[in-house]
Amino acid sequence: MTKASTTPGLPVPVILCGGSGSRLWPLSRKDYAKQHIPLFDGPSLFRRTLRRVAGGGFGKPIAITAAGTRFLVADQAGETPLDIVLEPEGRDTLAAVTAAACLAARRDPEATVLVMPSDHFIPDASAFAAAVAAAGALAAGGRIVTLGLRPTAPATGYGYIARGAPLGPGAFAVERFVEKPDAARAAELVAQGCLWNAGIFCFRADTALAEIGALAPGVRETVERAIAEGGDDFGALLLGDAFREAPRISFDHAVMERTRAAAVVEADLDWSDIGDWRAVWQQSPRDAEGVAREGRVFAVDVRDSYLRSEGRLVCALGVEGLAVVDTADAVLVAPIARAQEVRQLVAGLEEGGFAEARSPARVHRPWGWYQTMDKGERFRVKRILVHPGRRLSLQRHHHRAEHWVVVRGTAEVVRDDETLLLRENESVYLPLGCLHRLSNPGRIPVEIIEVQTGSYLEEDDIVRTEDDFGRR
Amino acid sequence: MTKASTTPGLPVPVILCGGSGSRLWPLSRKDYAKQHIPLFDGPSLFRRTLRRVAGGGFGKPIAITAAGTRFLVADQAGETPLDIVLEPEGRDTLAAVTAAACLAARRDPEATVLVMPSDHFIPDASAFAAAVAAAGALAAGGRIVTLGLRPTAPATGYGYIARGAPLGPGAFAVERFVEKPDAARAAELVAQGCLWNAGIFCFRADTALAEIGALAPGVRETVERAIAEGGDDFGALLLGDAFREAPRISFDHAVMERTRAAAVVEADLDWSDIGDWRAVWQQSPRDAEGVAREGRVFAVDVRDSYLRSEGRLVCALGVEGLAVVDTADAVLVAPIARAQEVRQLVAGLEEGGFAEARSPARVHRPWGWYQTMDKGERFRVKRILVHPGRRLSLQRHHHRAEHWVVVRGTAEVVRDDETLLLRENESVYLPLGCLHRLSNPGRIPVEIIEVQTGSYLEEDDIVRTEDDFGRR
Repeated sequence: MTKASTTPGLPVPVILCGGSGSRLWPLSRKDYAKQHIPLFDGPSLFRRTLRRVAGGGFGKPIAITAAGTRFLVADQAGETPLDIVLEPEGRDTLAAVTAAACLAARRDPEATVLVMPSDHFIPDASAFAAAVAAAGALAAGGRIVTLGLRPTAPATGYGYIARGAPLGPGAFAVERFVEKPDAARAAELVAQGCLWNAGIFCFRADTALAEIGALAPGVRETVERAIAEGGDDFGALLLGDAFREAPRISFDHAVMERTRAAAVVEADLDWSDIGDWRAVWQQSPRDAEGVAREGRVFAVDVRDSYLRSEGRLVCALGVEGLAVVDTADAVLVAPIARAQEVRQLVAGLEEGGFAEARSPARVHRPWGWYQTMDKGERFRVKRILVHPGRRLSLQRHHHRAEHWVVVRGTAEVVRDDETLLLRENESVYLPLGCLHRLSNPGRIPVEIIEVQTGSYLEEDDIVRTEDDFGRR
Repeated sequence: MTKASTTPGLPVPVILCGGSGSRLWPLSRKDYAKQHIPLFDGPSLFRRTLRRVAGGGFGKPIAITAAGTRFLVADQAGETPLDIVLEPEGRDTLAAVTAAACLAARRDPEATVLVMPSDHFIPDASAFAAAVAAAGALAAGGRIVTLGLRPTAPATGYGYIARGAPLGPGAFAVERFVEKPDAARAAELVAQGCLWNAGIFCFRADTALAEIGALAPGVRETVERAIAEGGDDFGALLLGDAFREAPRISFDHAVMERTRAAAVVEADLDWSDIGDWRAVWQQSPRDAEGVAREGRVFAVDVRDSYLRSEGRLVCALGVEGLAVVDTADAVLVAPIARAQEVRQLVAGLEEGGFAEARSPARVHRPWGWYQTMDKGERFRVKRILVHPGRRLSLQRHHHRAEHWVVVRGTAEVVRDDETLLLRENESVYLPLGCLHRLSNPGRIPVEIIEVQTGSYLEEDDIVRTEDDFGRR
């Protein structure tokens, strides 16, 4: 227990940004995970997570994410300093946590590390801070601490923790972990005072690395190699291919369930992992009839329902217990009680070849986003936003011409040998086959309306000659 | 009965195009009545009505409509010859039927007139023709005939007809009319063999005018004055202001319920006035689970429901007895069993100031239509279609500039002193304040994408200098 007296540096927050987006479809998509959706009339869960650890008292956060969503992560972080680490391939949480511990150890071998999923909703920041402080104190003493949550229902979707010997106020050794139980077993576990395992871990980097070394031999070495082989990728650390060799196993299974250092801090938190539309409804403000509304919604004689619009007018009459979720390209109507089945519905959509299963209407790109607003037989209209300082690839199309009208900001346009500066309310024509590029040299976003005309108007009619983001 | 031996000219079909669009909201709107909506994967009810009487055996149809929807009527008629009569103000059916009789009498005083609402759904054209032939035979003998339909349920939404003395096969004198009954009374009426009054009338012009003269003195003279004072209005007959003096009463109340000439032909028809979404569902093809689909719909474990999309993907999971109707700017979710209450919902929307209660996303104009496809703080994107040979007003705006890109057809554009011819994939810029006009000189529709930029982008920023349609 001598380590308890060391004064660690600032704890290193590590945010795990994996996960797909089936269960909050159509708001989330396979390519647009739920942590990136603005929810509850406010920022996304990822931004809220970052905000919880971006204040004083923490070191610079590390986000571990996939290459496909890294720009979304960066854009949502905005001005908040953030180290982004890219996994060449998702290998479950053991590999990610090991990478986090290795990277934190480079700052300070005894650094406290706080590992969090990016999709948790924790409305009370001070309760969270108190739990983290308690976990940090235990971690300083050489424990690997998980936050335990008092169950609000005998849920079958979470793992449970049986508490062992007390280690302090609200702190316990872990007697054992119990995997996701069935309903009857869940009720027993709740009755026995077991806690939910939230997947939020706190440990000293050296403790974790020692335990990983003992319980999952070779993984640390593999991950260290991936870090050493890795390199800068547009400001992020892209781990090397060695990362793909890490075993595909969770940190819970590989370490937490087997280490003697496991401890649990009982966190007195209002918490949700927003696992489906029922959870969104439960966490939303509701009126006396139990109706939660977001956006332009009109309800008559509706009870216990979740009604959400992103712009269109959503009208519900005489329904009960229903979720109605309207987005630019898809609308879902389902009983809240069957919210868990949305996942299978999306699997069915994907099998049926519906693009809406995977891609959102607004498609995020390294340079910003685009969205198709109208299309006809021989034309398509897109709105395109380019972040300050970014630019699209230098490209040409074989089957379409384009008209660009700048509606916000100042754009720089390359068209064959010319370079033009276009202000709001100025336009340019890009004939079929011309080499062109759209850049935002300014300090505010550029938005343009693009009118494409031609006989073939899909995304794959693009020949990239140069690209800032390594795309071909 | 000597009149029975006259050989009348071809019967004159008269289509009454009044009515608003609350009960099929959001597909219909206050400004876009249900008879104009494409339904059942086919043409609108108005077009179907016109088609039933546009073949051989009928004279040129007359449509009686309001000034506001006359271009919609004309456009939907397409190449079908049609006389359009405009009421300066809706005065219920007595005035309209009187005008129809007067106008038919000018063709032939003994002309047979067939008056029909424009919003009935009668899938079997030959059964309709047979009923009309039977009605025509009775009418030739001096009867005012109404089509009676065998009730399929004790509906409270229709008037009933008690049959009197038989006048031939399936033809009867009318013993009496019964106004919309309550449920118990409706059941009695059905048990007694009463028929539904469909509001489809057949009479000889002279018979009707004589009865109107006797039972509603002065109305014929008022209407004749309105016709005499009326004049050509872009190819339609606009009735004079005298029409406003006609009493606001139905032809049923004023004449049918009191004339001794009333007869009923029992029409053996599958018929619906498509009074609400339940009726649409009932008339639509349904699968084994009772689900009717139109458009891009995906349903899992859904029963007895109506799911409709105009483009977006509509997904329903685990619902029963529900109508989900998705349009470009609004979506409705309501139990089919409460379809009648949609009307009140729309009234509530109107009280709440929601523009969607009144106007559809696609706004019909004399020259074609426009639809807003995207808008931002300082821009708006519209798609505009101009029919061949039509043109918008010569106009200017104080607060916006416009960029037009032609995506179909060939447009003629006046811009201050210039006249430009724009082909597909050509564009023009209209600076703020310039005088401009868009015309379609060609034989196919012109479609353009209009990008407006400026600080104020509403419809009322328009100064019209010249207009083909008399608008200011």
